[in-house]
Amino acid sequence: MSGPALFNGVLAPDLAMHRGLHYGDGVFRTCLIYESQVIDLMEQCDTLNTDAARLGMAPVLAAELAREASDLARGHDRAVLKMTLLRAGAARGYRPDGRETDRLLCRYAAPGYPGATWERGITVFRSSFRLATQPALAGIKHLNRLEQVLASRDWPPGTDEALLEDDAGRPVCGTRTNLFWVRAGELHTPALERCGVAGLTRRKVLALAARLGVKTHVRDASGPELEAADEMFLTNSLVGIWPVATCDAWHRAAPGPVTRQLMDALRHPRLVQP
Amino acid sequence: MSGPALFNGVLAPDLAMHRGLHYGDGVFRTCLIYESQVIDLMEQCDTLNTDAARLGMAPVLAAELAREASDLARGHDRAVLKMTLLRAGAARGYRPDGRETDRLLCRYAAPGYPGATWERGITVFRSSFRLATQPALAGIKHLNRLEQVLASRDWPPGTDEALLEDDAGRPVCGTRTNLFWVRAGELHTPALERCGVAGLTRRKVLALAARLGVKTHVRDASGPELEAADEMFLTNSLVGIWPVATCDAWHRAAPGPVTRQLMDALRHPRLVQP
Repeated sequence: MSGPALFNGVLAPDLAMHRGLHYGDGVFRTCLIYESQVIDLMEQCDTLNTDAARLGMAPVLAAELAREASDLARGHDRAVLKMTLLRAGAARGYRPDGRETDRLLCRYAAPGYPGATWERGITVFRSSFRLATQPALAGIKHLNRLEQVLASRDWPPGTDEALLEDDAGRPVCGTRTNLFWVRAGELHTPALERCGVAGLTRRKVLALAARLGVKTHVRDASGPELEAADEMFLTNSLVGIWPVATCDAWHRAAPGPVTRQLMDALRHPRLVQP
Repeated sequence: MSGPALFNGVLAPDLAMHRGLHYGDGVFRTCLIYESQVIDLMEQCDTLNTDAARLGMAPVLAAELAREASDLARGHDRAVLKMTLLRAGAARGYRPDGRETDRLLCRYAAPGYPGATWERGITVFRSSFRLATQPALAGIKHLNRLEQVLASRDWPPGTDEALLEDDAGRPVCGTRTNLFWVRAGELHTPALERCGVAGLTRRKVLALAARLGVKTHVRDASGPELEAADEMFLTNSLVGIWPVATCDAWHRAAPGPVTRQLMDALRHPRLVQP
């Protein structure tokens, strides 16, 4: 006999007792809505189910999820869709008591960025915030995002993203992006086996690099390796590829040739602010 | 212009877009309601605000929180109250955009345990699940609880709690309890500076030990030190002190003399199942 719940003193909806809220027990994907379509919709649905399986959650019907997502996208030229799967349940206690999965789809206004973001590159910095090593959760886009919240505070003025390292000082990713760099024509990206989140655009870039014959290394790297990079870029499903022009004392003309080749191949729409 | 949100295909309440749900951006305390009173209410409210401050959240008025909590407790002989503070906001993006704090209070049915739990001790095991090292979040009861969810699965039959270690194999806590042990009449509990959660009952036990003249060590310890313990017990705000009789191959008559002395001093009500 659970309940009631009070939210700021007022009787709260059932969702207030959901284990998604109390434990962050779920996974998500952020998608771009462009010209009424959800970009990479089926891949995003499949990846969501793959991440859910890593937490022991039952899959949802991808077709049903995709239909709801398409309904939310219809009539929207540019917007953001966040698809979330939550382990169902409102009982207290960490142990999952079933394998049902709830679907939550939220639509948001699209962000906008200056066109120079893609044409001349962004400015990032290497944050002193360290990501914890947790192989059981590494790579999964799950709802336990306090590290990202804490790492999103106190950025130097004029920076577009913070690069995060693991507790051994190895570069891992941005707060909301995956990290790539190019050295001597070869592509590098961290392995994400101990921490970090594996975005869909990261996977697409790796596939494109293979198709274009760009030799690629998916492995741990050190801070000095990053500093020796010829090119650097960040990826996510909203911005596609963001070339990096400045990272602390590191400066390069951006986008560099390999980055440009991958941007041309990815053909991701640009959310240029009006 | 955010929204709408669909929960299982149906228009969802505003709470569906709250950053508490999407990021686990908040803190909580679990309290015992006993004979219409919330045990240690003011201390719990203060501790909640202390934890919130560690995440950069504004404090709430403890008196207002306590009044709402008391309203929910009234007329309930035994129940559980979970008090949660959430960083307010429903915008997408990790960076906190304000310092307002929302209050969520949920009441649940009280759990019940066999009387033997306190009289002859419980059975625990040392889980192979490793807690990640994250000093920025260590000690705080925050809403990122996926580690506890994953560590609550697949327990050996007949076990009451799982003991968790950090990534160096040092004992830290249970999934929902703090850990103490006694060796040669002295009390030991892990320091919780790299991971783990610091419960209010742990603090009360440490204060009682000081008052009773029991020498106490709050520091990191190794697995072998735990195996050499004369007594072991677990604490939380619902069960008070749970003496441990069995931990894998470790067996002792429970409660031991120091444990019993602390149980007598704590005078925590027992949730004996009918």
